[in-house]
This record gives sequence, C-alpha cells and structure tokens, in this order.
Amino acid sequence: MNGADLLCETLLANDIDVCFANPGTSEMHFVAALDRRSRMRCVLGLFEGVVTGAADGYARMTDKPAATLLHLGPGLANGLANIHNARRARTPMVNVVGDHATYHLVHDAPLTSDIESLARPMSHWVGRVETSDSVGAQTEEAIRAARSTPGQIATLILPADAAWNETSQNLPEPIELAKPGMPDSSRIREAADALRSGRRTTIIATGLALRSAQLELLDRIAARTGARLMAQQSNGRIERGAGRVSVDRVPYPIDQAVQTFADTEQVILVGAKAPVGFFAYPGKPGSMLPKDCLVLDLFAPGEDPVESIRALADAVVGTDAPPARLAPRHQPEMPTGKLTPDAVAAAVARLMPAGTIICDESVSSGRDFFRTTHGAEPHDFLQLTGGAIGVGLPLAAGAAIACPDRKVILLQADGSGMYTVQALWTHARERLDVVTIVFSNRRYQILLGELKNVGAGAPGENASRMLNLDDPALDWVKLAGGMGVEAARAETAERFADLLGSACSRKGPFLIEAVI
Amino acid sequence: MNGADLLCETLLANDIDVCFANPGTSEMHFVAALDRRSRMRCVLGLFEGVVTGAADGYARMTDKPAATLLHLGPGLANGLANIHNARRARTPMVNVVGDHATYHLVHDAPLTSDIESLARPMSHWVGRVETSDSVGAQTEEAIRAARSTPGQIATLILPADAAWNETSQNLPEPIELAKPGMPDSSRIREAADALRSGRRTTIIATGLALRSAQLELLDRIAARTGARLMAQQSNGRIERGAGRVSVDRVPYPIDQAVQTFADTEQVILVGAKAPVGFFAYPGKPGSMLPKDCLVLDLFAPGEDPVESIRALADAVVGTDAPPARLAPRHQPEMPTGKLTPDAVAAAVARLMPAGTIICDESVSSGRDFFRTTHGAEPHDFLQLTGGAIGVGLPLAAGAAIACPDRKVILLQADGSGMYTVQALWTHARERLDVVTIVFSNRRYQILLGELKNVGAGAPGENASRMLNLDDPALDWVKLAGGMGVEAARAETAERFADLLGSACSRKGPFLIEAVI
Repeated sequence: MNGADLLCETLLANDIDVCFANPGTSEMHFVAALDRRSRMRCVLGLFEGVVTGAADGYARMTDKPAATLLHLGPGLANGLANIHNARRARTPMVNVVGDHATYHLVHDAPLTSDIESLARPMSHWVGRVETSDSVGAQTEEAIRAARSTPGQIATLILPADAAWNETSQNLPEPIELAKPGMPDSSRIREAADALRSGRRTTIIATGLALRSAQLELLDRIAARTGARLMAQQSNGRIERGAGRVSVDRVPYPIDQAVQTFADTEQVILVGAKAPVGFFAYPGKPGSMLPKDCLVLDLFAPGEDPVESIRALADAVVGTDAPPARLAPRHQPEMPTGKLTPDAVAAAVARLMPAGTIICDESVSSGRDFFRTTHGAEPHDFLQLTGGAIGVGLPLAAGAAIACPDRKVILLQADGSGMYTVQALWTHARERLDVVTIVFSNRRYQILLGELKNVGAGAPGENASRMLNLDDPALDWVKLAGGMGVEAARAETAERFADLLGSACSRKGPFLIEAVI
Repeated sequence: MNGADLLCETLLANDIDVCFANPGTSEMHFVAALDRRSRMRCVLGLFEGVVTGAADGYARMTDKPAATLLHLGPGLANGLANIHNARRARTPMVNVVGDHATYHLVHDAPLTSDIESLARPMSHWVGRVETSDSVGAQTEEAIRAARSTPGQIATLILPADAAWNETSQNLPEPIELAKPGMPDSSRIREAADALRSGRRTTIIATGLALRSAQLELLDRIAARTGARLMAQQSNGRIERGAGRVSVDRVPYPIDQAVQTFADTEQVILVGAKAPVGFFAYPGKPGSMLPKDCLVLDLFAPGEDPVESIRALADAVVGTDAPPARLAPRHQPEMPTGKLTPDAVAAAVARLMPAGTIICDESVSSGRDFFRTTHGAEPHDFLQLTGGAIGVGLPLAAGAAIACPDRKVILLQADGSGMYTVQALWTHARERLDVVTIVFSNRRYQILLGELKNVGAGAPGENASRMLNLDDPALDWVKLAGGMGVEAARAETAERFADLLGSACSRKGPFLIEAVI
C-alpha cells in the first residue's frame, strides 16, 4: 500500500465516496489508487471550476463532503472561484491538490507555484502531506476540519512522492467527529429577552436554520414574539414550497435593503452574518442596518444550530402556541405570450415535480422567482453564495449526483453560464437528471444596470463591447449539443412550457434556451 | 477626473492601449472611464482565463504589455492559470484587479477575499492603490515592473473608491523606462573561455535569444566553437522557418532529455533555466544534466540579452567566420489517407502563408511538428510555457489582435481546448484571423501515457472515466458554431488539407476538428 492508497482508504473509511476530479501527471499514482477502488465514484470535470462547483452542490444536498482532485497550483487556481462560493455557503469540502515530489520543488519546474498562498484565501484549513506515512493522519485532520460546525473548506496538498512511496500504516478506522457544542444558555437567554423586549426585531437565518423543521420553530418564535423572519441574502440551501414555512431573503439592491431594515431595532442572527451591501456605492451605507440597531448571535461557530433554535423555541414559544404557518399550495396561471423571467418562474412553479432541487444562478433574471414559487411543490433551493459567477452548471451536476432520484432544475443566466459551460459535458457523461434553463438576454444585464447607477449615461462603444453579448449571439442549443446534451430554444411562453413539461416528464439532461 | 480616469490616462500615456477585460460591479467606474477613451481598445473575454491568456499572446507579439481588467479575488483566480503561463514566458503584463471600496472591506461582503495572497504566487510585483491621488504613481510603478528585462507580471489592486474619487493630479507624462544593464564583461569572458575550452558544450537559449538576429549570432558562436545550440523546452516565442536558424528544443520526456545531455560537459544558459524534469518520476533524476556538468549564465536578469549575445559573438566568432546556417525552404509531401498528427503538420507546413503565427497547445499531438516545419515559410512559434493547460485559444486571440495582418494558426489539443473554450466567442466577436486546428483524439492522451509509466497497467473503470473524453464525444463543429465561429470536421488528410487551404485563403476565424 502506498500513500495514495492510504489516502483513498482514509476517505472511504470516513464515508467520502465521491471524488470530483481533473487530474494531471503529478496525481497519477492517486488516479491509479482510485482505479483500484471501485467503491469510489470518480466524476470528471473538463475544467476545475466544474470539479469544485459540483463538490459544492453534492455536499449541500448530502451534508457531507466530497473529495476533489486538482492538479498543482494552476489546477487549484482554476477551481478557486467555486471554492470561494462553497466557503460562503459553509459547505464541507476536502480538496486534494497534487504537487511535485518534495525533492523536485527545488528545481522550480514549470508548474511549480506557491500552492499554500493560493489555497489560504478560500480555505479554512490548509495542510501539506509530509510523507506517505503521515497521509492518513493528515487526511483525517482535513476531514475533521471539513466536518466542523458549520462546514469548512479543507485543502490538502499531496506531494507526488508522498503518494507513490510505500507506507507501513495500517488500514484506517473511521474517525470520531467532534459533536457540535451545546447551546450557550446565556446567548439563548439574551435572545429570548430581546424577543420579549418589544423592540422591532428581524430574525435572519441561514444554514441548517433554513431546513423545514428549524424554519417551523423559527416561524413559531416569530409569530409568538411579533418578530419578522427572513433568510440571509445568499444561502447554501433553503427548504421551501407548499407545506413549508415561506421566508423572503434580504434583498440584493442596496436601497431596497436599507428600506427593508429602516424600522428594525434589533436583529437576531441565526447562523447568518449581519447584512451588508454586496458592493459599496458612493454615498451609500455599507451596512444595511440602521446605525443603532442591536445585533445578537443566537449561537457561535461550533455550537449546535439545531439545538440552539430548539432551546430558543422552548424559552419563548410555550406548548400552547399554534403550529407554524405553512405555505398553501398555489399554482400561478400558465403563462402565455411573450417569454419573460416571470413567465419562466410561473411555468417552473406549475411543472416542477415534488422534491425538485432548484439551482439558481439566474442573477438579474431570477429576482422575482421566489414570489411566484412560495406555493409550488416542496423543493430545495440552492443559490450562488459568494458572488463568484460560474457556479450554476457545476452546482446542478453535484446536486444531481447527490440525489439521483430527484429532478434538478437549473435557472442559469447566460453570461454566468459561459464561465463553466464545460459542466454540460459532465451532465451528459453522467446522464444527470438536470433541466438547464438559460436566460438568454445576451448581455451582462446586472452590469448595465450598475453602469447606469454610476451615472455614466448610456454605454458607449467601449462599455457596450464589455457588457453586451449579442455580437455574436451565443447559440445555446449548439453549445449543449456540442457536449452531448439535448437542447431546444423557446421564444414564447407556450413553447417554453411545452419544452419544460416534456423535460420534466422524462429523465436525463436537457437544456432550454429561453430567449427573453 | 477621477482615479479611474487617471489610471486610463497613465496606461495610454505609456503606450498600453489594449485592455482585455471581464469587469464586474466594483470596476464600473473604470469601465465608465474606459468608455470615455476610444483610444483604448477593450476586448471582452467571457471568462478571465481568456482575458489573461489573450494578454499573454498580445504581449509576446508586440513586446509590450496589455492591461487586463479583472473582478476581485475570484475574477483574478479565474485568470491565474494563464498568468502563470505568462510568468513562465516572461511576458510583460499589467493586471488591474478591482476590489471593494477601502472602507467596505471591514464588512467581509460575499466577494471579499485576500487578493494579495492570490496574486503573489503568479506575479513578480503586487501593489494596492491607496487613494485616487496615488493611482498615477502606482500605475507607473506597475508599468515599470512589467517592462523590466525580462518582462514581469505586475498586478495592481484598485479599490472602488480609489477609482471613483476625484483626483487633483495632472495628466500623466510617459515614464522613462530603465534601460537594460550592459553586458557583464566577466560573464562574457567566462562564457567565451568555456566555449574555447574544448569541453562538450550545449548553449540553451530562450526569450529574445530566439529571435532571428540573435539566433544567427548564436549559430555562428556554436559553429565556430563546436557547441550545440538548443532552445529551452518551453519558450514564449521562437522565430523559425526557411531562411532562419533552426533550433531544436530540449525534449519533454525525461528519458529522452537525459539522453540528450548524456555527453554534455557544460551548458551555457542564454536567458534559459537549467533543464529539469517537467515532473518528478520515481527513480529518475530531477535535473536533465549529468551530475558534474558545468552551468554558466551568459547574463543575469536585468542585463541586456541582445547586447550580451553580441558581446559573446565579438569575443569568439571573429570577422572572417562564415554566416549563420539558415534552414532551406523545404516542403514535405502533401499528406494523404489517414489523418494523423504528422499529416496535420505536413499540411500546415505546405499551406501556411509567410509570417504566420503558430500557437501551440497540441500537447502530445504536436511533438513532431518542429521536425516537419523547419523549412516552412518563416513564422513565429508561440507555445504553452507554464504547463497550465488552457492557453491555446486565448493566446491565439491575443496574437491576432497584436498582428491583424498576419495569419494565426492554432494547434489545439482537445482536452486543453475545453479549459478556455469560451475564447472562440472572442475570435468571432473580434473577427480574428485565426484558424484553430483541434486534435480530436477524445482523451487526455498524455495522461494515459503517464498512467502506463506509473506501472498501473491498463486503465480500469475509474481511471478510464478520468482520462477518456469519448463518452460523449465532443462535437467541436457545434461548439464553435455555438460561439459564432465557422467550423468543419476532417477525418482524412485530404479533407483536412482542403479545409486548411481554404481557411488560409481568406480572413477570419475558422475551426477544423481534426479527428485523429
């Protein structure tokens, strides 16, 4: 058994049995080790952004990490943008980054770079394997880091000689994971007191707080105390739809967000961060909260979110309180005529099967999706969390691999979709049950809006050439076809609904170019 | 005038008038400033790897930097792999990376990350603008760094408020660049003595030493002293073809490279690095040179390569020496029958017009291209320099923008081509005169070879799923069509030659999928 074998065995012993990969020469012994273990499912991405985004989607749906396999500094660099998104989603992830053999680094061969410096900004934990004998212990440490509460990004650098050298270590046993810390009674009491204080309160939740059971408790807390319950602006996963508690998210546009909190006197954060502007704008505030707004955390990192919410409910709700207010089933009208983002949302609301996983990287085109789908079949909602575009297609791939029996519908902006368009090949290769809806507006719509905000007036030649994608227009049907994904174009609401209905009635990847 | 205006003016004053860009909200004031300056040519890439690879290709052909415009840490991260290649090519480059407003960083908004940590491994110089008043001086410093001898990567971080705040600075004047240092007479003498010593000598050259004039001097030095002249394994640009000095490159496969240097007693490096294995392999040496081989540098960084070569020629060649040995014009037979990499090389050798720029990311399929094209029309040869695949399509875009009157022919491996496939859209958008030849072998051929070297035997299920691209096969004609590039498929040598001949007889982008 060599170091690479020990690494594989340690991953498998700890229930990491999916590896999203794009390997290179320095990882070849690891590839050979994976090849000796059919229990590990290896999924190739034709670009590392696909690999890391898929690992994110997989972990959001399984609540456990996948492994990624990346090729030295440049391979890691290619995957960083989606690792950044995963970090913001608090996704558990174990990245294995191959490096040159320890004794080869001195030669500064062409692919050499400072991998640690690249990894640190997007990782909570970075380690470098020293020898084949320490692979097991260091992999365990990476897994422990990844499976913290909340999840973390662990990046493990694997020199080629640590992979190919023999090891005298035994086959690994599963590690015992640290249990999340018990609720902090003083924080719970403080939050309970605040809720009873009569101050106008918003509860902002994210992470595990946005699963059905926790949302029901939070809704009852809010109802009993007169507080308002919201979700953070960007979240890894929300359980929503008919029969579940509806929550709105903190709005993205800064003026609207400031308006939302204008009357708020205190905020209770349930895993969330205090809401701030996605960007700064001249003369506008950075925080979305009023200046003297009180901010409380219900729990600290490491403490158990589920138990903390339960403790707060015990403190303020009482046993006689009414049950949570659940969204009734509601179907919007089937859209007709012009194809608009609203028409897309309405058709999706009507046609998606129960248990659908919605992945959302629709950027400006999806702003109103929530409003239309509160009463749709119960579904999970996964979104872009870190603002690094290019997560949609990979995220959908990972979610589909995590949940092969559920439909995945991806709402994909065209500009962002091009960032990791290679993921469509993985959809085809793995026969994933993903319907991709491309909002084809042929421009960076959000940036045209921002340019206007800057006071630059109508875009001239240079701005237009940086913000418009219409010359030439992308043909998404051909792009999908080029990667083996069946596709069609819709220019009316009726045609869109037809295509979506048929895609939902069968399994396998399909792409709809929605020309809006 | 705001900081963004001052940045644009400083770039333009210093002859940087092409900006490869993929902007976001935090760069919107810079976009507006670019929009006010039609002298700046803005070229959009639909992914940052396109942006940085194109800037590399542009600078390799113009010997001056382009600017890039990137969106915070994740945007920079997406561009790092090709910045890595540019760093290895010693390409001058000025990257402008937008960041949040200085006072917004404290909020840790979703897109916040440690940009310096990401930039440093792939940059020679990293700076962060402090205020709108210091934009000019800091941009000048970045340009000075980029235009060092040899070229450097300069990465300038531009906070949004430094861009949008007004500045009281005046319009900038062009800076005076430091002249490269004069040859070091002791190094020249040492090299001359070594060449006359009778020891078996290899001269290894890269950078400016691989332009015609310097190659002729080096050839005369080699001829006079009995030394062997080679090019480094990977080089930014080589001038070659009929009427020029032919040089072979240090081979990539480690065994072949060690064999090449088995008898070498000393090496004179002309801008090059001492040859080392691209990767380490168990039981094989890291250096390609024999243990007691002497290694001399003809010049140090900062010293003038051209003058140093001239000084060495003055010292050893003498005025009566014969002229350099130039490659005679030679045309291989027009290939027929099965389409192979050799057939592609022969057709390119026959059909490319004089002054063609060959961009090479053919990986395993292009190993024999040199042999077939020593006597082709004179051309420039640009290759993957840092081993970070995904440079080919962007590099070709940049070279075509640099030299609009010359044909660009790109030799592109299929696996690598997928990394930055978005560049095809830029080929179409900018109507670039690029013929892309995709070697469609539908696998990571080089890795299948490496897996065999590892002794892993025939690939099993997992290895095969990570190294084969045949399920489904990529359809490059559709992919190109999806981005507005005309394309066709060739499965025989005759068909390939027909397509290439017709693509060479007209202008504009064209892609040939060469099924090999």
